[in-house]
Amino acid sequence: MKKITILGSTGSIGLSTLDVIRKNPGRFQVVALAAGQNVKLLKNQIETFKPKIVSVSTNEIALKLRQALSPSIKVKILYGKEGVNEIASFPEAKIVVSAISGAAGLMPTLAAIEAGKDIALANKETMVMAGEIVNRRAKIKKVKIIPVDSEHSAIFQCLQGENIKDLKRIILTASGGPFLNFNTNQLKQVRLSQALKHPRWKMGKKITIDSATLMNKGLEVIEAKWLFNLDIGKIDVLIHPQSVVHSMIELIDGSVLAQMGIPDMRIPISYALTYPERILNDLSFLNLLKTGKLEFRTPDIKKFPCLRLAYEAGLCGGTTPAVLNAANEIAVAAFLDQKIKFVDLPGIIDMVLTAHICGMHPSLKDILEADSWARIKTTKIIERIIS
Amino acid sequence: MKKITILGSTGSIGLSTLDVIRKNPGRFQVVALAAGQNVKLLKNQIETFKPKIVSVSTNEIALKLRQALSPSIKVKILYGKEGVNEIASFPEAKIVVSAISGAAGLMPTLAAIEAGKDIALANKETMVMAGEIVNRRAKIKKVKIIPVDSEHSAIFQCLQGENIKDLKRIILTASGGPFLNFNTNQLKQVRLSQALKHPRWKMGKKITIDSATLMNKGLEVIEAKWLFNLDIGKIDVLIHPQSVVHSMIELIDGSVLAQMGIPDMRIPISYALTYPERILNDLSFLNLLKTGKLEFRTPDIKKFPCLRLAYEAGLCGGTTPAVLNAANEIAVAAFLDQKIKFVDLPGIIDMVLTAHICGMHPSLKDILEADSWARIKTTKIIERIIS
Repeated sequence: MKKITILGSTGSIGLSTLDVIRKNPGRFQVVALAAGQNVKLLKNQIETFKPKIVSVSTNEIALKLRQALSPSIKVKILYGKEGVNEIASFPEAKIVVSAISGAAGLMPTLAAIEAGKDIALANKETMVMAGEIVNRRAKIKKVKIIPVDSEHSAIFQCLQGENIKDLKRIILTASGGPFLNFNTNQLKQVRLSQALKHPRWKMGKKITIDSATLMNKGLEVIEAKWLFNLDIGKIDVLIHPQSVVHSMIELIDGSVLAQMGIPDMRIPISYALTYPERILNDLSFLNLLKTGKLEFRTPDIKKFPCLRLAYEAGLCGGTTPAVLNAANEIAVAAFLDQKIKFVDLPGIIDMVLTAHICGMHPSLKDILEADSWARIKTTKIIERIIS
Repeated sequence: MKKITILGSTGSIGLSTLDVIRKNPGRFQVVALAAGQNVKLLKNQIETFKPKIVSVSTNEIALKLRQALSPSIKVKILYGKEGVNEIASFPEAKIVVSAISGAAGLMPTLAAIEAGKDIALANKETMVMAGEIVNRRAKIKKVKIIPVDSEHSAIFQCLQGENIKDLKRIILTASGGPFLNFNTNQLKQVRLSQALKHPRWKMGKKITIDSATLMNKGLEVIEAKWLFNLDIGKIDVLIHPQSVVHSMIELIDGSVLAQMGIPDMRIPISYALTYPERILNDLSFLNLLKTGKLEFRTPDIKKFPCLRLAYEAGLCGGTTPAVLNAANEIAVAAFLDQKIKFVDLPGIIDMVLTAHICGMHPSLKDILEADSWARIKTTKIIERIIS
């Protein structure tokens, strides 16, 4: 039985991970869970999977959870940043699923690496913000980092049996989001409810908005840079509205290898949990007779400037990707609160990036400071816009 | 320098192989060549690649070749079946490219295996006729068999880093040939010149006709059965008119891996020569923005019964695939001689198969006898039709 810790167990990836575990009895054991504030869901997860230790966001939530649980259930309940870090480094686990959303996922993932755990990485911000540090620590600790993002899992799968020196480039595919065929005027009218309707994938709200702006793809470009140790120039993006090809690698001999499948995160999750083996998933298989014709286009960075901003931040390196990510998190939160418009997003992020003085080869402290600075700066810019 | 022997050096695969070798000076050395009757071309190849030994079809051709060559060129010239077998087992070679067309490729390939050479296999008849024996001998001789057919190379590439127990099925793609969208009446009117125009690949005449009838795909199904040790039930065919995806594997977790590229045999050839490494090919790369939308359909076995006949022969096993192949070779030769019509092909082959009494786990002698019997039988059936 492979012992598993899940950081972010009540989120979209957390739920899919637990579904894979439930469907493979005898193969996995959940030893620790970290969640946020969803007491009801976490209670159910504790009753079903019987972890030894869990963590929630605050002391108050921890008390609520204790009250909700039957006294017969033996589980240690922690809270706060110390709590989640203790979960991340819980000794029994072999692998930690890093699925906390956003910049908040960085420190627990680093804690898991320090504790020598293999990482199933769904939190792309870990690599976007601190890829250089993460790779260095993972190497020292001999920790495997296995991507969970469908695109990076596709690349990772295609690279099996290949030599990285034979790689010409990787091609990340993007559905293009709900506004792929919108013109500039239509983009100005976008309502929140439209932006939350992703054509292919069911995901959390933040990443759904990022998919609509193509910032998600931009963050993935930076994530790929660190996951696969590639120059940004070797990472291309193609729009592929059918979302059948999850990503591709191009080799120097002219061969292109692609990984395809239905849009279901349980496939890359199960692969990350069982790598290098695979397990039978109780899912429908891809039917290429019913997917429609597969189409590829160049992304329109004039219509979707977030992708350009991310490429530029990735090229710049240092603290810049952390600033990009923080500015985007704050701006998207403001859009979700309906304080700003969809088309305001790239401009706001661009202003923050322009104001940022980049530090190269940053320490963790530098990165966290840049992240904090960017959050304050973005908030101020947004306040100026809406006032 | 990797020392290479090419069986069938003046054919389409032979020429492409020599082109790969020419473009990678210092990497490969041609030590032996076997050709048929093309003195002029073989003379050029000898002058350029300086093999130590060559073989042609007859003593007469051998004498012509000797006269054509400058006396200063030192090359041993052999002929006939003994000649090609000596080429196949020429001690210096590390790898033998098996690219003689048709059933004639079987014995030289077996000779190369007996001599302990790795095989870059372009001659699918080797596996179609005698897959069981070939696999047994290759195992004993610890010989690697690396496919050159673009479909099988694609499968082979996708399987790198995967465990065969995790394989659900393989999907061979087929362009569908020039008559994909013809109706039954149109098929009755097909002229030879039309059948010789393949929409995607430039190949020899025999295989071009086989692509038009889908017999080529059927032979590939049987070849795949032995190359990858799969039940016929795990080998599917999809029509893919764009010929961008060269084939796919489906894994038990729902992942599908595909190999893609431009339709140029130098890609799978170079891979077979350098496996598990890759080399930079001086070819254009695949441009998914210009291939058109990728489309997949079920093959129509009513319109193209040769595919069904091949599946049935593959399921039956024993001597039946050798009979299928021999009947097809004779029938296609008659079509190329304009003695029979395009739509006559499947019926003739079906009649031969129906008349055949299958022997299971055949010896090489049994296979060669079945092959001879089928050639005579097919010739008689054709004579009856045209008289």
